[in-house]
Amino acid sequence: MSIYSERLLGVQDKIRKTGLEAAVICEPTSIRYLLNRNFVHVGERLMALAVPKEGKSILFINRLFPVSGDESFDVVYHDDTEIATEGLARFLPSGKIGIDRFLYSQFLIQLLEQRNDIVPKVGSYVVEELRMIKGEDEKELMRRASVLNDEIIAKVPELIRPGMTELELADLLIAEYKKVGEPWAPLVGFGPGAADPHHVNSDTVISPGVVLVDAGQETNGYFSDMTRTFFYKEVSEEERKVYEIVKEANRRGKAAVKPGVRFCDVDAAARDYITEMGYGEYFTHRLGHNIGMQLHEEPSVSASNTGTVEEGMTFSIEPGIYLPGKFGVRIEDLVLVTKDGCEVLNSYPREIQIIG
Amino acid sequence: MSIYSERLLGVQDKIRKTGLEAAVICEPTSIRYLLNRNFVHVGERLMALAVPKEGKSILFINRLFPVSGDESFDVVYHDDTEIATEGLARFLPSGKIGIDRFLYSQFLIQLLEQRNDIVPKVGSYVVEELRMIKGEDEKELMRRASVLNDEIIAKVPELIRPGMTELELADLLIAEYKKVGEPWAPLVGFGPGAADPHHVNSDTVISPGVVLVDAGQETNGYFSDMTRTFFYKEVSEEERKVYEIVKEANRRGKAAVKPGVRFCDVDAAARDYITEMGYGEYFTHRLGHNIGMQLHEEPSVSASNTGTVEEGMTFSIEPGIYLPGKFGVRIEDLVLVTKDGCEVLNSYPREIQIIG
Repeated sequence: MSIYSERLLGVQDKIRKTGLEAAVICEPTSIRYLLNRNFVHVGERLMALAVPKEGKSILFINRLFPVSGDESFDVVYHDDTEIATEGLARFLPSGKIGIDRFLYSQFLIQLLEQRNDIVPKVGSYVVEELRMIKGEDEKELMRRASVLNDEIIAKVPELIRPGMTELELADLLIAEYKKVGEPWAPLVGFGPGAADPHHVNSDTVISPGVVLVDAGQETNGYFSDMTRTFFYKEVSEEERKVYEIVKEANRRGKAAVKPGVRFCDVDAAARDYITEMGYGEYFTHRLGHNIGMQLHEEPSVSASNTGTVEEGMTFSIEPGIYLPGKFGVRIEDLVLVTKDGCEVLNSYPREIQIIG
Repeated sequence: MSIYSERLLGVQDKIRKTGLEAAVICEPTSIRYLLNRNFVHVGERLMALAVPKEGKSILFINRLFPVSGDESFDVVYHDDTEIATEGLARFLPSGKIGIDRFLYSQFLIQLLEQRNDIVPKVGSYVVEELRMIKGEDEKELMRRASVLNDEIIAKVPELIRPGMTELELADLLIAEYKKVGEPWAPLVGFGPGAADPHHVNSDTVISPGVVLVDAGQETNGYFSDMTRTFFYKEVSEEERKVYEIVKEANRRGKAAVKPGVRFCDVDAAARDYITEMGYGEYFTHRLGHNIGMQLHEEPSVSASNTGTVEEGMTFSIEPGIYLPGKFGVRIEDLVLVTKDGCEVLNSYPREIQIIG
């Protein structure tokens, strides 16, 4: 039996154990994870894998995107002249159906209008919970992607030039990442730009102070993601103080990771320290996110997540302090949860580094 | 009153006239169209503009994406530690609520679990119907985007080189489009590659026969989109025959466009001719799509759309014939619906052209 058939059986197991009658999966990466097919993105059209409690799954997809079924799934086509969900509505049993959280509401509403005996539940977990726990091959791919990321972040000091803009540094980084995979859009923040955790790279020119780089790439289907905060020419007393707090928060976050710990407690391990040091209100986002075949996967490493850390998970630990109009500092590493702790996938130094 | 406030009033008018109590809009371009704010993409997070029947609208958005309200809308933040839809659930009235077709099911299911007195209806039309009818400024932007596209497609014959791959031609086109806007991923199909309407550009090397280019760009917030099918070195008798059929179908499609005609009849004007000529089964997609601030907008120019064409709409007419394993031909123009017909926004010739 292929690993893909085994994964589909794993989904069916979760469907039964959580009282669902079936699940509808549409997130393309999840479908790739389950079916071993590379899909083009169907855009606004419907692509839905219906997984029954037992028996063969069916992929409902627009005829524009032909795909071959196999022993674990059949394919049913629709086209642009039909109501996309008709086949799905005929196939699904009554009762609680796990619905992919990313299914467009259009299709869910259509489905509910055809089938008032269906009770929709957010059901992405039936595949997300499998994807969370990396197999041995996947662990190796995650390690490799982060080693490559470390090597590229190590080039930041030599890529920096006087007069350079955020966009220019980002372009140089993208060119480096393209050599080893598919870069995601890096975040480059100079000075006050780094004070926005979702900063959009601009033509701001480098000046003495913070150079924040949050970047990574997809290599062989698996993602890396890390952040380092450098200092160009000089570091002020306040910057140094904030940096050291974030570094310690990063350390405490990682130190809290082991199987059985709640995600909210990992978040708290880093957050409470930042709060104690007087900067709690400036740490405005969750501590991290799981990662794997996508940059951001479930579950969230956040104050609201009472779920527990399990062996084989990979997620980010990325505390930050953002002082609006001044500067921001974030230090982010990926961790892989081991039997009794975690393996840190990034090794690039976290000491204060003055560059340029 | 700003044009944006007027648009919001237009949405409220549609809400009342179609028996909704409110609408929830999340598609970022629609929100930009209504609020005149440039949003970064919030990814998997919630961004929802709740528009009541009357009174001020509220934008519910994650605190990570700060935005300033104005006289026509307030902003209510949530953060990653909260249930994202709680504020929305408190704000919405009972009854039929128009839901953006692109809202993730996760949020709709959350909402319905908090509020069983809400009846969700696909409600994107309350803004899509406004966006369909271009204002005078928007018409000018659409014309301009297509003039620029014509100029770049005109360069295809000189960009072609012996030994070139689809990906290389695509890269050259992208570089050209970047000079005048933001290119979308062009489709380049050589020979059999052109026989797939959703072909993924490959390293197939050019050889005598079809060179299909479907490309365009966004300039000043508005999109162009056109397809021309060239012939490298030579054209076979079958290719010529198919080409002339597609060209005539393109002409007939455009000739059918005027206010009051149904979209399905525009589709039929082109499709019936292809069918008469014996190639009906090889025209496997809708005739076209509306376009504007996005590449693909509602409504569809398809056999299943009985809606009617209105003055001020802009859409594509793109018949094609796809002979699997052999070649494909598509000829696509954008049209702007006038008082009694249409203005064709693309002027690049449609005669058979042998290049290289």
